[in-house]
Amino acid sequence: MNARTPRITVLAGGVGGSRFLVGMRETVRRRGIDRAQDHLVAIVNTGDDLWLSGIRLQPDIDSILYALAGVNDAERGWGRREETERVARELRSWGAGWPWFTLGDLDLGTHIARTGWLRDGLTPTQVVELLGRRWDLGVRMLPMTDTEVDTLVTVRDGDDVRQLHFQEWWTRHRAALTPLRFDNPGIDSALPAPGVTEAILDADVVVLAPSNPVVSIGPILAVPGMRTALQSTKARVVGVSPIIDGAVVRGMADICLEALGVATSADTVAALYGARERGGLLDAWLVAEEDRALVPAIREIGIRALVAPLWMHGGTASADVAEAALGASGFE
Amino acid sequence: MNARTPRITVLAGGVGGSRFLVGMRETVRRRGIDRAQDHLVAIVNTGDDLWLSGIRLQPDIDSILYALAGVNDAERGWGRREETERVARELRSWGAGWPWFTLGDLDLGTHIARTGWLRDGLTPTQVVELLGRRWDLGVRMLPMTDTEVDTLVTVRDGDDVRQLHFQEWWTRHRAALTPLRFDNPGIDSALPAPGVTEAILDADVVVLAPSNPVVSIGPILAVPGMRTALQSTKARVVGVSPIIDGAVVRGMADICLEALGVATSADTVAALYGARERGGLLDAWLVAEEDRALVPAIREIGIRALVAPLWMHGGTASADVAEAALGASGFE
Repeated sequence: MNARTPRITVLAGGVGGSRFLVGMRETVRRRGIDRAQDHLVAIVNTGDDLWLSGIRLQPDIDSILYALAGVNDAERGWGRREETERVARELRSWGAGWPWFTLGDLDLGTHIARTGWLRDGLTPTQVVELLGRRWDLGVRMLPMTDTEVDTLVTVRDGDDVRQLHFQEWWTRHRAALTPLRFDNPGIDSALPAPGVTEAILDADVVVLAPSNPVVSIGPILAVPGMRTALQSTKARVVGVSPIIDGAVVRGMADICLEALGVATSADTVAALYGARERGGLLDAWLVAEEDRALVPAIREIGIRALVAPLWMHGGTASADVAEAALGASGFE
Repeated sequence: MNARTPRITVLAGGVGGSRFLVGMRETVRRRGIDRAQDHLVAIVNTGDDLWLSGIRLQPDIDSILYALAGVNDAERGWGRREETERVARELRSWGAGWPWFTLGDLDLGTHIARTGWLRDGLTPTQVVELLGRRWDLGVRMLPMTDTEVDTLVTVRDGDDVRQLHFQEWWTRHRAALTPLRFDNPGIDSALPAPGVTEAILDADVVVLAPSNPVVSIGPILAVPGMRTALQSTKARVVGVSPIIDGAVVRGMADICLEALGVATSADTVAALYGARERGGLLDAWLVAEEDRALVPAIREIGIRALVAPLWMHGGTASADVAEAALGASGFE
């Protein structure tokens, strides 16, 4: 046990990552820390970033940004609150972009600012830093890499097998086409963004947020050097299960896991990440009360298993989950 | 005199060019021509096109596009009718773009579609052709060049002399800083866009629209090959004076002319373009009734001078001006 506020680094994707980070920020602030961002770093998935009609989109960066700023549309699960779609209607009339992919007007402000900064020569890391300055986020956000990485999905479509962009599969087809494989072409030559490796090595606690293990956490772990950093860090590495009682809390992780031949269960996802003491990533794994029966199986894998309420139905509940993750790491 | 519908090519800038083109389209349609675009080509100034926050803007192309489509804000003189500025407010909050340069939401739809097509590898000519497909414009629009050309203004600012982008001078400073010079760096290596030279050479009538002679018509004429084409064409070349009774109809042509040492008068602008028979560009020059007294001076330069009402206060008035221009060319 350690009474000082630990330095915490969270690997995170979109919605699950956002909620968890809001909770973790609360736990840091509860400890009387004003500048929570000095203690809390988010390494964010950029695998589903994309260029659309000349504009750069970063879905997970923006989900986390908006959630931390308190301007997100929590009900819909993505984008800004009080959003409108004037520009998107025009784009449809022009036949530009993807008609099934809605760009909100407020959201487009972010995309255009980002696009301008990138075209001016700023790196994605510098752009994310600039985006983070507008509000008091209390989290230092880092993209997992400054290299442009796509996520492609190979699907079965009737008798055909074809490959499509993750967003097309996710948003247009709502994951209805059976995925056979997920690929991040070029990721083998990607580099962790500046500060990412340090944030893992210098942390006291590293948390794998309850995000999609395949398409959110997966790409982060696929960046060369990331697994080595996680295995080398002196931090405790704790994961929070995105699966409760054999089902996804939100999103389509179940379908993604199936493509990997992994059952949708808190213990199988723990096994996917693996025990650090056996060459994997996790020191500890936090499962929901509903999954208490899985604790022995997880311990069997070599991972310390802890039980807590994992439903993040609001700021307090999210903070409780974050506290439990800190607890699992040995910090209170 | 010739009873068939002539092929007409108009060199045009923003507002003056738009109004004139709307009128010219009407004269073509009055002759029972459904596809006016087979008879009417606009070669449009792209000298004040710009990249802003990663987005490509083409102010004169859009002014003409919106006016021909009937979706322009005629009162304000630029942009779309029923425009809103949700995205622009966001961009200001992000500190992106130019706070003094408003991008309307509907207008941004155009900019983003264009940006996407350009990033996909289409040429500006192809992009303008795509933009023109949405409505029945009745005019074939061609950018003057596919080469990116800027317009820079050298101004006196107190005791300083400095250079700024045309849009900054025009929109931010409302031309309040005294211009000393206008430059289009790189224009010497620009090429006329595909179809431009042909549209001049194959026309029956070429019209210099009543646009700003310095910053709208000037850059078009500065594209290498343009003057030669105008001097070689078998067409009659007619200009319509943008100056009535010693004053600009709209805009800031007077300030621009002053930088060139040219007085704001219908005859001095005619002299600036010059008589084709003496190595200049004009066969004929249309002046307003208010400027009837200048006719002898213009004839003295070697240019046929004709008098007509030149106020384009609506579609009918614009069509009358266009008819007068056709009449000046020898077509009725």
